[in-house]
Amino acid sequence: MDNSKTIVTHEKVESNNKSGINYTTVVEQFGCQLIDNELISKVKQVVKKDTLHPVLENNIFFAHRDFDALMDKCLHEKKNNFYIYTGRGPSSTNLHLGHMIPFMTAKYLQDIFDVPVVIQITDDEKYYQTNSNIPFEQYRQYAFENIKDIIACGFNPKKTYIFLNSIQNTHFSHNSVKIQKRIKLQHFKNTFGFTDDDNIGKVSFPSYQMAPSFASSFPILLHPPTDDNPQLDSFYNPISSFFGQIINPDAHKEYLKQLSNMKCLIIAAVDQDPYFRTLRDIAPKINEPKPIVIYSRFIGSLQGKDKKMSASVNNSSIFLTDTSKQVKKKINGAFSGGQETLELHRQLGGNPDVDVATQYIEFFSGDTEMVAKVKEDFRSGQLLSGELKKKCIEIVNNILDEHRQNREKITNELISEFMSIRSLI
Amino acid sequence: MDNSKTIVTHEKVESNNKSGINYTTVVEQFGCQLIDNELISKVKQVVKKDTLHPVLENNIFFAHRDFDALMDKCLHEKKNNFYIYTGRGPSSTNLHLGHMIPFMTAKYLQDIFDVPVVIQITDDEKYYQTNSNIPFEQYRQYAFENIKDIIACGFNPKKTYIFLNSIQNTHFSHNSVKIQKRIKLQHFKNTFGFTDDDNIGKVSFPSYQMAPSFASSFPILLHPPTDDNPQLDSFYNPISSFFGQIINPDAHKEYLKQLSNMKCLIIAAVDQDPYFRTLRDIAPKINEPKPIVIYSRFIGSLQGKDKKMSASVNNSSIFLTDTSKQVKKKINGAFSGGQETLELHRQLGGNPDVDVATQYIEFFSGDTEMVAKVKEDFRSGQLLSGELKKKCIEIVNNILDEHRQNREKITNELISEFMSIRSLI
Repeated sequence: MDNSKTIVTHEKVESNNKSGINYTTVVEQFGCQLIDNELISKVKQVVKKDTLHPVLENNIFFAHRDFDALMDKCLHEKKNNFYIYTGRGPSSTNLHLGHMIPFMTAKYLQDIFDVPVVIQITDDEKYYQTNSNIPFEQYRQYAFENIKDIIACGFNPKKTYIFLNSIQNTHFSHNSVKIQKRIKLQHFKNTFGFTDDDNIGKVSFPSYQMAPSFASSFPILLHPPTDDNPQLDSFYNPISSFFGQIINPDAHKEYLKQLSNMKCLIIAAVDQDPYFRTLRDIAPKINEPKPIVIYSRFIGSLQGKDKKMSASVNNSSIFLTDTSKQVKKKINGAFSGGQETLELHRQLGGNPDVDVATQYIEFFSGDTEMVAKVKEDFRSGQLLSGELKKKCIEIVNNILDEHRQNREKITNELISEFMSIRSLI
Repeated sequence: MDNSKTIVTHEKVESNNKSGINYTTVVEQFGCQLIDNELISKVKQVVKKDTLHPVLENNIFFAHRDFDALMDKCLHEKKNNFYIYTGRGPSSTNLHLGHMIPFMTAKYLQDIFDVPVVIQITDDEKYYQTNSNIPFEQYRQYAFENIKDIIACGFNPKKTYIFLNSIQNTHFSHNSVKIQKRIKLQHFKNTFGFTDDDNIGKVSFPSYQMAPSFASSFPILLHPPTDDNPQLDSFYNPISSFFGQIINPDAHKEYLKQLSNMKCLIIAAVDQDPYFRTLRDIAPKINEPKPIVIYSRFIGSLQGKDKKMSASVNNSSIFLTDTSKQVKKKINGAFSGGQETLELHRQLGGNPDVDVATQYIEFFSGDTEMVAKVKEDFRSGQLLSGELKKKCIEIVNNILDEHRQNREKITNELISEFMSIRSLI
């Protein structure tokens, strides 16, 4: 009998099992699908590759909604007519490795699918959530620093748009109005646990996390004028868009129809499902396509995979700003799946399923074959815990070094480029 | 003993007395101040005029919050450093005379004070409120038609900005975030009677009606770059504004401080007080000045001043699209304060306090002296009800004729001009 208990909500992630969250339970509870081998094969077919990054191949992204249908569509149409949407809540300047997973994955998928990425910075959300008197401006400061860390992941500036919720474009506002109309207060109370003691912003915020899931929130970026649709020029400016809709409603409808062919692939940790599950119910009611989603596991804390890495829990995390010495110390002290003595380890082998360093290698090495070998050797007792940790320290420090080098090169001009509204396709 | 009963909330206005709403009760209930003779004298001093339009002189705008302090400031500074804010919820294309009062008044005050006017069109609000399946696009169509009616009131295109809530500018969004943070759900439930069965949009909407009350929602319009503040250039574009705040926080604070010297005068019917009363409590918490408000009485229905004119109540209203024949028929059938026979009228005199035509003359003639004479002559019995109604018909038809002529001349280019973001000062 499995006594393990897993709690995953939009604000809490916990398990009483050292192997970590039971993701099969989560999938059943949320009603989404597991990413299986058949789906991984389809992805390989679409991107014409024999192996994929461990984030896919090793099921770090383990669940989905309609990702299989999206791959079928890409195969059928012989083009990848979708964009990727992910985001970040700027609660501090202190990003840890876990925060990098959606961005690392979005960048990888941008490369292999050659598609646009939009990244939402929810400065409003974090301001609404805090109980302290931190002014809104402080969250924009965090946003500014976080944007640098996101760009440092290597996104293609020609195909990536980063935006703050407090700098909303018109089409985005328009869609959040439509979403807010379709959701009753009671529903959000049930879904997110809001009470009458919460502020209005907390209650309205989810609609702003939902709105970027429709291409019609980003017409200039995702459906720029072409020779085929010169008349659509008029829809790109907020005011002329308003006139266009009034004066030529048929062209407006046709334009929305064309935009709805551009699907959205959301990349998120699985605790974000309540947002997108709700949105998928609303989408048909406002004539928008249901967004597609893939969900990731959580990266374990240094103390073990039963808790997720958290910036607010002391010593649970490796931060992007940690020195190589700090990283070494932290990983050497991380929860190990190895045996207590060398003799026992050689004899019984280690347990990679609970081993924290193994998981970090899995998430960050980018090398599916190597991950398989590390796990096998550790399980057989051939690879010692110290050796495995050494490998992990090297991988993590290489990633952090590269990140720091990338980040130092980022100018305000480059940030402006990422934030400016222009065609991404 | 006064048995009259008056109900005024943000959604209901009723009285059981034919003289109409008891506005003294309303002022007590809402905790605002009456506009008295002393305040009217101050206004005259500021605008250097001996008489004012009856909207002020005859207390059609009867109550205020801090309007006296604003007039003192204008006298002291010898300049009118404020802007006017009013708005319209586009629930249909069918505007009646009552809908014109805030715009007529805003236009008049724009002329005498020589100040900018911003006009909010709450297409989101009306979409949230409806129980029918009318798509959002329909409310933008109403908005488009309503904007023409508003422009036809004669606003100065150089000093007037008209905007849709669904075309939000960044600074406006920024302020509604700050407002939403400061209001608990329970407070809005108490103030507006929201329940958990209401949609999220209804609950978040009030913050969008509040946000235009701060000049910082409209920096480009109300605080354009000058030789004194060339560095502030950087704050006018959403992205460079974001950078400006990060890179030069002191200049940003100074800029906000300068903007907060530009006060806001809100023109509204008194049922809108719950919005602005709430906002005045929040303003100091987010370092913004409390907005100033003046509140109008309601224009009575054709059946009597105990009900307000309402587009949704049959035959209660004179519409802007009514023909002169329809106007004549409606006013001739309106509730009269005259006596039953000519002899009795000459003997006892009429009652202008309950007479609907007298009120319409008061609201729309623009001639304070003439209004006084009409009332006096009607009360003395010298002016017969038929004569008074004839005068009223003439005044209303002249207004509607002029309105129609103005409206026909409005081009899409002119609408664009009113809606474009540019300096208003």
